[in-house]
Amino acid sequence: MQDKKADVTREALHSSFYELLKEKRYEDINVKDITENAFTSRANFYYYYRSKEEMMYALFYELKYSIGIEIDKRVEQLREVDVNDSEALSAILYPSIFRTLEYVKSNKWIFILDKRTNDFDFISTLRVEYEKNITKHFSADIKKYNNAEFIRINTLFYTSGVAAVIAEWISTDMQTSIKLIATTLYLQLYNLFMILYRTHIVD
Amino acid sequence: MQDKKADVTREALHSSFYELLKEKRYEDINVKDITENAFTSRANFYYYYRSKEEMMYALFYELKYSIGIEIDKRVEQLREVDVNDSEALSAILYPSIFRTLEYVKSNKWIFILDKRTNDFDFISTLRVEYEKNITKHFSADIKKYNNAEFIRINTLFYTSGVAAVIAEWISTDMQTSIKLIATTLYLQLYNLFMILYRTHIVD
Repeated sequence: MQDKKADVTREALHSSFYELLKEKRYEDINVKDITENAFTSRANFYYYYRSKEEMMYALFYELKYSIGIEIDKRVEQLREVDVNDSEALSAILYPSIFRTLEYVKSNKWIFILDKRTNDFDFISTLRVEYEKNITKHFSADIKKYNNAEFIRINTLFYTSGVAAVIAEWISTDMQTSIKLIATTLYLQLYNLFMILYRTHIVD
Repeated sequence: MQDKKADVTREALHSSFYELLKEKRYEDINVKDITENAFTSRANFYYYYRSKEEMMYALFYELKYSIGIEIDKRVEQLREVDVNDSEALSAILYPSIFRTLEYVKSNKWIFILDKRTNDFDFISTLRVEYEKNITKHFSADIKKYNNAEFIRINTLFYTSGVAAVIAEWISTDMQTSIKLIATTLYLQLYNLFMILYRTHIVD
């Protein structure tokens, strides 16, 4: 029971911090603001974190972890699909990308904060996770068709494109519709599959 | 005649610098090395440049300028092509990308130096030039089909992908064959055209 109560307090502190970020700059928020807004005591805050900075890092870490899980899940789904069946592929890929972007948008403030502070590099995380997963999942299959270097370069191309688009989306306060971003990333990912499966490179 | 002779001396100084860069680190090269290797006097060097650094900046600037010209030329060629004619498109695009990469490789040392010093950001230059040109050339045509935001996002995706692949190529000392890089960039650019011309997005 103690653990459950602790979780509730911690969650309240996190929510309070997110709420404050909508109104104020990170630099202008202090621990007192966070605890008052969460209707809890400063002692409770210091039970979990030594400082506002430490809390921020914990949030970044959680986000990084959950992004990893999300991407793993989606790559897992792809294992089931026949890459030559373009309708089946799009039925899986588009909603998956759309949901990931919704997830990013619902965690908007932490991403904007990340962008501002540069303490936790979300964009590199995204790139590393994607590259790891695409390489892990597809390499065995694709190696039948292509050389590993070609796969690696194309994956780097794709993940860097995704990272740049997401970074720009965040830095422009996510004004562009999710639909437009999702369509772009979907079409580009679909193309990546086509390049990797349909091109036979002899170097 | 005076101007022509001056050009020859300046060229000799540049070549000397490039040659030395193959053997030594930038930091370990001094003006004396450059002039001795160019069979000219230090006075001649100081007639053009105040320091080794100033010469390097001049070389970066020239490179930036010539990259702009190169890209302009190639985009100009594309104006003539029917985008729906995939064979005509590939006949123009692939050799054009291949030649650009050869050009980068023949200027290898200055790119590696750039990467090391971070004084002149070649990668950003490349991105800006590409974005400017793709947008300038294709926007009128594509706007019939798509909204400007969609074009912008896809162009950003493409140029960031190119920049990442080239940056990695440079940082790994251009070990990967030009053919493999050119094939990747060609297939990705071809895909960009297909996305921009064949997708009709209503946002």
